[in-house]
Amino acid sequence: MANKRGVGVDLTAHLETLLPPGTRTSLVQEVIPKLIASFTTIAHALRSAQTVSQVGTANAFGDDQLNVDVMAEEILRTAISQIPSIFTASSEEDPVERSTGSTADVAEKYTVAFDPLDGSSIIAPNWTVGTIIGIWDGETALKKSGKNQVAAVLGVYGPRTTAVVALRVPGCKEACFEVGIGEGSGASSSSSSSSSSPPHMEIVNPRIQLQSAPFKTRYFAPANMRAAGEDDKYMKLLTHFITERYTLRYIGGLVPDIVHALVKGHGVYVSPVTGNSKAKLRRLYELAPIALVVECAGGSAIDAADGKSILEREIGDTDERAGLICGTTEEVEFVHKTLLG
Amino acid sequence: MANKRGVGVDLTAHLETLLPPGTRTSLVQEVIPKLIASFTTIAHALRSAQTVSQVGTANAFGDDQLNVDVMAEEILRTAISQIPSIFTASSEEDPVERSTGSTADVAEKYTVAFDPLDGSSIIAPNWTVGTIIGIWDGETALKKSGKNQVAAVLGVYGPRTTAVVALRVPGCKEACFEVGIGEGSGASSSSSSSSSSPPHMEIVNPRIQLQSAPFKTRYFAPANMRAAGEDDKYMKLLTHFITERYTLRYIGGLVPDIVHALVKGHGVYVSPVTGNSKAKLRRLYELAPIALVVECAGGSAIDAADGKSILEREIGDTDERAGLICGTTEEVEFVHKTLLG
Repeated sequence: MANKRGVGVDLTAHLETLLPPGTRTSLVQEVIPKLIASFTTIAHALRSAQTVSQVGTANAFGDDQLNVDVMAEEILRTAISQIPSIFTASSEEDPVERSTGSTADVAEKYTVAFDPLDGSSIIAPNWTVGTIIGIWDGETALKKSGKNQVAAVLGVYGPRTTAVVALRVPGCKEACFEVGIGEGSGASSSSSSSSSSPPHMEIVNPRIQLQSAPFKTRYFAPANMRAAGEDDKYMKLLTHFITERYTLRYIGGLVPDIVHALVKGHGVYVSPVTGNSKAKLRRLYELAPIALVVECAGGSAIDAADGKSILEREIGDTDERAGLICGTTEEVEFVHKTLLG
Repeated sequence: MANKRGVGVDLTAHLETLLPPGTRTSLVQEVIPKLIASFTTIAHALRSAQTVSQVGTANAFGDDQLNVDVMAEEILRTAISQIPSIFTASSEEDPVERSTGSTADVAEKYTVAFDPLDGSSIIAPNWTVGTIIGIWDGETALKKSGKNQVAAVLGVYGPRTTAVVALRVPGCKEACFEVGIGEGSGASSSSSSSSSSPPHMEIVNPRIQLQSAPFKTRYFAPANMRAAGEDDKYMKLLTHFITERYTLRYIGGLVPDIVHALVKGHGVYVSPVTGNSKAKLRRLYELAPIALVVECAGGSAIDAADGKSILEREIGDTDERAGLICGTTEEVEFVHKTLLG
């Protein structure tokens, strides 16, 4: 079980305990706290958007774009523009790496790549959705492997607003923890509330750790289950989960589905690639940050097509996609063997 | 598609359009609006409960009770105590019908039976959870069939706070609609904020209607999927859903899983009863109100053991349980044939 010392500690104070003094001060004091603070603004925007209407435009990948997607994108862009050590940004809604205009003379230079609001299809029924952010060393995330991420942050918008943070700074011990986000006094649905005071952000689980066998309950989250109709190996895998009495939990939103495994301490998420079912998840905006989080929690994340590590593969452009197998390492290995062995 | 006229109308004003003038004035002006207003208080309590701890007591059925369950129970009991036409109440947390103490001389007398917070197992990962309320004519809900309900209300706590209302007053046209709930000025996490102003409650979908074939997307939500390992008929059903390319959405919370079907216009929820897998859902606190909602949306809800209508069966005591097949009528009929034919 996780060590519960540290519950209730302020986010920045907790971050400072994870790195040697003076290390990555902007990452610890600005980048991560300011991005997480913006989740409160996104949460307020979602709460106010009772009529979830489609704006009538598609994003660059052809997905329908909901008005709340646009709001989340604007809120994060505003937050990014106020962090001098972020030099480059791109997102699933605007998937072109661009300079933020920062000309700061700083020791740290970061690129952020983010999916502002993952889970469009489950917004209408009021299900939990999320934000995915990868934080990369340097002025680009392209032509590099996911190992160049120093941190990843998931925002979770459900009954509460929470965040999962993974930290993997070269030369330092890696970490994965959960943050509870309160209501900022100035939080508003406007994306320009830059002068408002930050929300209360405190540690609710200082150490997220996927556990080892024996497991009390085993969970599985099978994406694109209908692909099993045309793929015997995927059908065999699903039959295994059923007959071995795994518990099904599948929202169909990458953030809540992964966070379920992290919070419960066990789980395996499978988004396969089969003959008629193409790879769906974007390497830059979804796979790389999710893989960092899962690995920092002690799990594994591999490519569903060839079983290779998600983080070791170089990302060539912002639209590259793949399938995903991730979660508890022993389960990932079993899925690998079943689907690809 | 639903008729979108009525979007943005105030809840009470909308309720008044559904019944002849002067009909069920307490139901329309007090019971339904005040119960729904209390969902804002529950939502605030959930948002403030970043550390979801178990209080160390089990409820009368032996479930672990979370602190937020207790808060939701108290908030609803407070709301009920302020509605003179509610004479009797019981809940899944305190499953004994008791007088509310009301001695009002009123034309309407109601009993409410509720599950204050359904979905305990998915609170920790911050997934959408809900409240289930059945509103019954008279001073008891027992030894009566679910047809004695005049209304049912589901509260949905996700990124937003929403409610689904079903109304079936004898002699009047039935209705099912969705309400968006804003932030009340006095909403607080205290359960005693009786003097606060009510939250803004407006219609976001004036007519929830499960649609007829052809369906753009077919959804299925299979509860207790591991039971298929020992039940060939359930396995055959799941295989059918997969090979026919249905889309899986299964949170494992009755409210969000049912609301998904209602909002999307299609879906089938199956909680089977097999040899080793006992009936899990309480007739009084879960099945009866859910069945009323699904029927008022144009769907069907039947007992998974014998295929009989949920609403036609008399409920003998507060702990009676059953399995459930509900949703789009044509799907419910297919599941009935497959599991029980």
